[in-house]
Amino acid sequence: ARAHSIAELRAMAARRLPDFCLEYLDGGADDELALARNRRVLDEILLLPRTLVDVSQRELAVPLFGTEIALPAVIAPTGFNGLLTHAGDRVLAEAAHAAGIPFCQSMVSTVALEDIAATGVRHWMQIYPFKDRDNLAAVVKRAEHAGCEAIVLTTDASVFGNREWDRRNYRAPMKLAWRKLLDVGLHPRWVLDVLVPHGMPRFRNLGDFLPPGMDSAKNAAAFLAAQMDTSLTWEDLRRLRDLWPRRLLVKGVLLPEDALRAQEAGADGVVVSNHGGRQLDCAPAPIETLAAVRQAVGAEMTVIVDSGFRRGSDFVKARALGADAAMSGRATLYGLAAAGAAGAARALEILRGEMERTLGLIGCARMDEVDARYVGRG
Amino acid sequence: ARAHSIAELRAMAARRLPDFCLEYLDGGADDELALARNRRVLDEILLLPRTLVDVSQRELAVPLFGTEIALPAVIAPTGFNGLLTHAGDRVLAEAAHAAGIPFCQSMVSTVALEDIAATGVRHWMQIYPFKDRDNLAAVVKRAEHAGCEAIVLTTDASVFGNREWDRRNYRAPMKLAWRKLLDVGLHPRWVLDVLVPHGMPRFRNLGDFLPPGMDSAKNAAAFLAAQMDTSLTWEDLRRLRDLWPRRLLVKGVLLPEDALRAQEAGADGVVVSNHGGRQLDCAPAPIETLAAVRQAVGAEMTVIVDSGFRRGSDFVKARALGADAAMSGRATLYGLAAAGAAGAARALEILRGEMERTLGLIGCARMDEVDARYVGRG
Amino acid sequence: ARAHSIAELRAMAARRLPDFCLEYLDGGADDELALARNRRVLDEILLLPRTLVDVSQRELAVPLFGTEIALPAVIAPTGFNGLLTHAGDRVLAEAAHAAGIPFCQSMVSTVALEDIAATGVRHWMQIYPFKDRDNLAAVVKRAEHAGCEAIVLTTDASVFGNREWDRRNYRAPMKLAWRKLLDVGLHPRWVLDVLVPHGMPRFRNLGDFLPPGMDSAKNAAAFLAAQMDTSLTWEDLRRLRDLWPRRLLVKGVLLPEDALRAQEAGADGVVVSNHGGRQLDCAPAPIETLAAVRQAVGAEMTVIVDSGFRRGSDFVKARALGADAAMSGRATLYGLAAAGAAGAARALEILRGEMERTLGLIGCARMDEVDARYVGRG
Amino acid sequence: ARAHSIAELRAMAARRLPDFCLEYLDGGADDELALARNRRVLDEILLLPRTLVDVSQRELAVPLFGTEIALPAVIAPTGFNGLLTHAGDRVLAEAAHAAGIPFCQSMVSTVALEDIAATGVRHWMQIYPFKDRDNLAAVVKRAEHAGCEAIVLTTDASVFGNREWDRRNYRAPMKLAWRKLLDVGLHPRWVLDVLVPHGMPRFRNLGDFLPPGMDSAKNAAAFLAAQMDTSLTWEDLRRLRDLWPRRLLVKGVLLPEDALRAQEAGADGVVVSNHGGRQLDCAPAPIETLAAVRQAVGAEMTVIVDSGFRRGSDFVKARALGADAAMSGRATLYGLAAAGAAGAARALEILRGEMERTLGLIGCARMDEVDARYVGRG
Ligand SMILES: Cc1cc2nc3c(=O)[nH]c(=O)nc-3n(C[C@H](O)[C@H](O)[C@H](O)COP(=O)(O)O)c2cc1C
Ligand SMILES: Cc1cc2nc3c(=O)[nH]c(=O)nc-3n(C[C@H](O)[C@H](O)[C@H](O)COP(=O)(O)O)c2cc1C
Ligand SMILES: Cc1cc2nc3c(=O)[nH]c(=O)nc-3n(C[C@H](O)[C@H](O)[C@H](O)COP(=O)(O)O)c2cc1C
Ligand SMILES: Cc1cc2nc3c(=O)[nH]c(=O)nc-3n(C[C@H](O)[C@H](O)[C@H](O)COP(=O)(O)O)c2cc1C
Repeated sequence: ARAHSIAELRAMAARRLPDFCLEYLDGGADDELALARNRRVLDEILLLPRTLVDVSQRELAVPLFGTEIALPAVIAPTGFNGLLTHAGDRVLAEAAHAAGIPFCQSMVSTVALEDIAATGVRHWMQIYPFKDRDNLAAVVKRAEHAGCEAIVLTTDASVFGNREWDRRNYRAPMKLAWRKLLDVGLHPRWVLDVLVPHGMPRFRNLGDFLPPGMDSAKNAAAFLAAQMDTSLTWEDLRRLRDLWPRRLLVKGVLLPEDALRAQEAGADGVVVSNHGGRQLDCAPAPIETLAAVRQAVGAEMTVIVDSGFRRGSDFVKARALGADAAMSGRATLYGLAAAGAAGAARALEILRGEMERTLGLIGCARMDEVDARYVGRG
Repeated sequence: ARAHSIAELRAMAARRLPDFCLEYLDGGADDELALARNRRVLDEILLLPRTLVDVSQRELAVPLFGTEIALPAVIAPTGFNGLLTHAGDRVLAEAAHAAGIPFCQSMVSTVALEDIAATGVRHWMQIYPFKDRDNLAAVVKRAEHAGCEAIVLTTDASVFGNREWDRRNYRAPMKLAWRKLLDVGLHPRWVLDVLVPHGMPRFRNLGDFLPPGMDSAKNAAAFLAAQMDTSLTWEDLRRLRDLWPRRLLVKGVLLPEDALRAQEAGADGVVVSNHGGRQLDCAPAPIETLAAVRQAVGAEMTVIVDSGFRRGSDFVKARALGADAAMSGRATLYGLAAAGAAGAARALEILRGEMERTLGLIGCARMDEVDARYVGRG
Repeated sequence: ARAHSIAELRAMAARRLPDFCLEYLDGGADDELALARNRRVLDEILLLPRTLVDVSQRELAVPLFGTEIALPAVIAPTGFNGLLTHAGDRVLAEAAHAAGIPFCQSMVSTVALEDIAATGVRHWMQIYPFKDRDNLAAVVKRAEHAGCEAIVLTTDASVFGNREWDRRNYRAPMKLAWRKLLDVGLHPRWVLDVLVPHGMPRFRNLGDFLPPGMDSAKNAAAFLAAQMDTSLTWEDLRRLRDLWPRRLLVKGVLLPEDALRAQEAGADGVVVSNHGGRQLDCAPAPIETLAAVRQAVGAEMTVIVDSGFRRGSDFVKARALGADAAMSGRATLYGLAAAGAAGAARALEILRGEMERTLGLIGCARMDEVDARYVGRG
Repeated sequence: ARAHSIAELRAMAARRLPDFCLEYLDGGADDELALARNRRVLDEILLLPRTLVDVSQRELAVPLFGTEIALPAVIAPTGFNGLLTHAGDRVLAEAAHAAGIPFCQSMVSTVALEDIAATGVRHWMQIYPFKDRDNLAAVVKRAEHAGCEAIVLTTDASVFGNREWDRRNYRAPMKLAWRKLLDVGLHPRWVLDVLVPHGMPRFRNLGDFLPPGMDSAKNAAAFLAAQMDTSLTWEDLRRLRDLWPRRLLVKGVLLPEDALRAQEAGADGVVVSNHGGRQLDCAPAPIETLAAVRQAVGAEMTVIVDSGFRRGSDFVKARALGADAAMSGRATLYGLAAAGAAGAARALEILRGEMERTLGLIGCARMDEVDARYVGRG
């Protein structure tokens, strides 16, 4: 069965995954207002089509940090991808590589960053501000040696969001509710792909943060939460800037003034994000603050946006409102969870096709020429 | 059973048609946002009634290209009408003729344009920009000989919209999914009317575009998609202008600046349309850009609008916002699909009745006197 | 069982009435947009409460044409009340009398206007502009002799609204669909109250309009529709003004300019109304044009509003926005249909109680002091 | 089972309580528009997060009348708490004490105010304006002797709101409908906790208002309604001011001008409230008039808000819009009704946790620094 949209991939993923995985993947914080808002605001943005424009040759590529990406898309960093399919991070990285876009690896991923680097993908490494700064520096060093192009410091998740789906699914830290354990048994395809051959996935990029024998996803979660350094400030960003010679992005910015601060602290870019609606439930949708962020930082800084992107047209809207590219979080994860490598590739193929079609339909032959003249609000 | 509204005709059509036909007819692109928006915006427009006006003699007729039409309505060009009832195009043309309004034939129709001309209807011919310009010129010549009043160049569908209903219904190009084939068997009335006597309908106006033996609707679709010339520009419109001596309209314009360009290129009119929500899903509703389009092109140019028109009052709103007439796409197709010739006639009778009633209720005796004073937004 | 709200009375009416009656009573035109809008706009209007005001003595009475009414309410003219309960008009008139408010009788009522006058109620007579002006003059004369205080000329229903519920319920003019006939048999309480003792109710105020033996509701409808004079103008209103020495109101005005015209033609008042959503489906809600109407005609003219009033607070909103009173259409009919005289009385008691409570809750002791300071829009 | 949100506590309460109790607790007035609006408006307020702020030490405490409270929350006065669990007021007072916030006792509570005082909680006493002023003065004296910090005069409930749930539940004053009596039998846990050991709870703070033997909740209701003095004015507030030496608040103010009047009459604070949507159904949500109220009274006066607060983030929004604190009505009652003392404590723990998390997520370390810069409207 061939999926025709990300929504269809999600439906396939819902069949293959045990509940607790799907809910982890799908869910948002609190009352899921931000989750819903992300889509609603995107849906309300209109594209204003020009007609009788030669769109026979459509060019989706745009520059990013001086080098072209095939689409204005980047794979968002997401943890625990190994739960969706075996070695999920590597599978996703390979799909990104094939599609010609960067892959941003999560710090709480389950494949070693060196293994990702080996795929040849344009490789970004996301880090969380853990308390143990020496260890963090060590991870940054590993990223440097592995040839990562960028470090992405995620700053909106140090205080953990209230995802009630997840909380309801566990009896105790990492102990599934009985009802949910039973449900796992009803998803043999997943058990055979993920659980049986390799057991519970392990974190491969936290090395020294974790006490020996604690790197299994099963044990690490509580430990990690405690490790999160909620005292981080712009000063720390400056210090990271000194440590890391290549591209540096701050992920989790929503307001123009914070984007400006990131710029002043030496960051090369920001990811305007509400973490896919998984953190602050009363947050604005990133797409609605994007234009103001671009305005604040000027044309030079790299501005990436994410949260709620499910259609190629969403990426076109992001460009029109000033983003260099948008990150794909769940959209590609649904593909990965639906059918592993084939699913991840299909997700990107769908998005690429939709972007190309959208360019054609709005009468703009080049993604890098999409601008504010192409958007309106209903 | 007598239908009292287009909605009731749609319900009857839904019973008579196999799923794959109904979904082809009903569906919109992507998430069907434009489809829903078309109706929502129309519904939100208020009519402001005057009372104690003599409306005993209501006149629905308005001038169009210097000659009167009995209602401010034109049958929209729609392809594959032969799928809904045998010789659907001719049936519809005859209904239009009887009702005193023009019939715009689709280029991908299944009755030869000469046969339509023979009905005596005020005949317009819609064309798609196919790559083979010589052939296109040949079709235009045929239209000229057949006495067509106008050529309508559709420019919003060269890149094909993403209609997921259709895509899900086929296993391979023009091969129905098994489930849907089965469903065909459950609609014997349709099978006996459409399939048995004549087989799959054939395109009659594409002649030389199609390789010999390829004019069956079953085979032609993929071929046609490939034929669409997505490189068309305003320059080509000018060339068509030189080729064609009578009325020329551009269909698929949404923005005032494009309407102006059409005017400058010598077009006599535009059809403000989002193709019934079947192409760009983030498009504005034509009815919401209509007033600005009229403002841009001035009083002289012919401006027609379509997408979502289901009630007579919708046509009155179109007039109030500056249109000369509105096109009826699905509204009349539902009638055709519900009950062939009787259904098509009934659809037009319903619309005519509703227009007349609406004029009476807003206190305006003449359709050509409806203007901006009669509309408000809720 | 004691109803606590108009909604509960409606539920009781729905049990007692055959479908075709309930649908006649409940329904609106076309897609019932105006029906829904009437409520939505009322619901969106906020009341702004003052606290610590002495509201121990609440006075609901307001002046109307120089004489007090006990509540700012008038019973709206509604035809065919005899269908809801035997002699419905008289029952309703008595309830109005007891409650201290005027009763406006419909021209297509089934009790002779002289019989209503005999109840002692403050009696208004609604007339439709029938073609036969002599006969109309005769009805007006009858109203004068019977002591009616006011003539209400309804001008928004000469062209009949498209009520699809009604249309679907009949096979032919006044011939119920079989399905609906059957349903009548399932409502014995109604059959015994309305049908058996008296047969189909007869029109008692159309006398000479109807050919002999045609005054049964069953036969008259088509005839009446044909009698409606859609050529009426402000000139005719002036002529009526000359004919009728007492209060004259125009019912069915929605725009300020028409209210002004009514004033200039010598009317004493207007009823701002969209006929309860039963005529023009794209009409504004009267409550949203009310303030502009009052502004246009100044403080002297009587302005009444209706359409959608179901709660006492709605009447308070009407006063706050400039109305002298509001008419109750369905609200009291639901009572009548639920339980005859007791139901009609209960409906008025509920409304009165809600008005009194609302005054108390907004901190305004007198209905005639409610003004714009007490309303806001959400 | 551990509840993760107030919504889950409500679900547990719904299982434990007989219908008539749940409906009493949950319900609003009339059509429950205000009830819905309270939540909708809160949900639409956005929080604008700053990132890279040191939030490792979050301080929730804020000053209230010169002394710190641990959270910007106060337990709202609610009558009949004894219906939810035995000695509900004391249980709630103890939970408030443990959480470090004030408890405002309702005048129609079922535990003597002296018993509440004995818990050591920061104790406020709410009073209703009963007609018998001497008795009211006596209650105020009792409050003074018991050491209450504040008197809260509730002014929005002298005229009783129309709660149809309640009205439908009773055959006669305090006589449950048969259907609802039966339902009581289906909730044995409640019967054993509330009814069996102690019988119907009795009012303990109305003493001399009630005729001997009339202090059972079963008999008192009608009597109380009659006792409500709807003639109260600002003059009476001034008199109360003279009587009572400590903090005085007026609860039930919605407009800035009334807040000003309260200030002029010597009140120390106002509670901006629509009584949880239980009184005037067309009232604005308090959260939408809050900023204007604060603006009117200046920085000095204490402004508390309530109605609809269910999430910690709601309290943060209240602070951002100018409130000193917000009252929790149903949120903590759901806890109480779900599981007595443990439930009440859990409700406060949930709210505290959510406030702390929200501060972390918006990047503001101190509750007393949250201000208008942190809110937007979607
Ligand atoms: C399952 C899941 C795990 C995530 N894990 C991380 C993570 O480890 N690090 C991070 O910076 N963001 C993480 N995010 C946030 C994503 O990077 C991204 O901001 C978000 O998914 C975008 O919204 P979308 O899913 O609607 O596209 C995660 C998101 C999801 C859905
Ligand atoms: C089934 C169907 C087939 C169509 N085929 C064509 C076509 O061949 N050429 C064209 O210009 N437009 C085509 N259209 C678009 C219509 O001309 C018209 O713009 C649209 O139907 C208007 O919206 P409505 O259906 O809501 O009235 C088609 C529309 C439908 C529904
Ligand atoms: C069943 C029914 C019959 C009506 N008949 C008449 C009528 O004979 N004459 C008239 O002027 N208005 C008539 N009306 C309109 C009412 O006078 C009034 O404008 C309308 O009912 C107000 O809306 P409401 O029903 O929401 O209160 C009728 C309305 C209903 C519901
Ligand atoms: C069951 C219940 C009983 C109440 N009783 C009183 C009361 O006795 N006195 C009072 O001033 N307010 C009373 N209130 C109103 C509350 O003090 C408070 O204003 C309201 O509950 C706030 O809304 P919320 O429930 O949405 O938090 C009551 C509210 C409820 C839900």
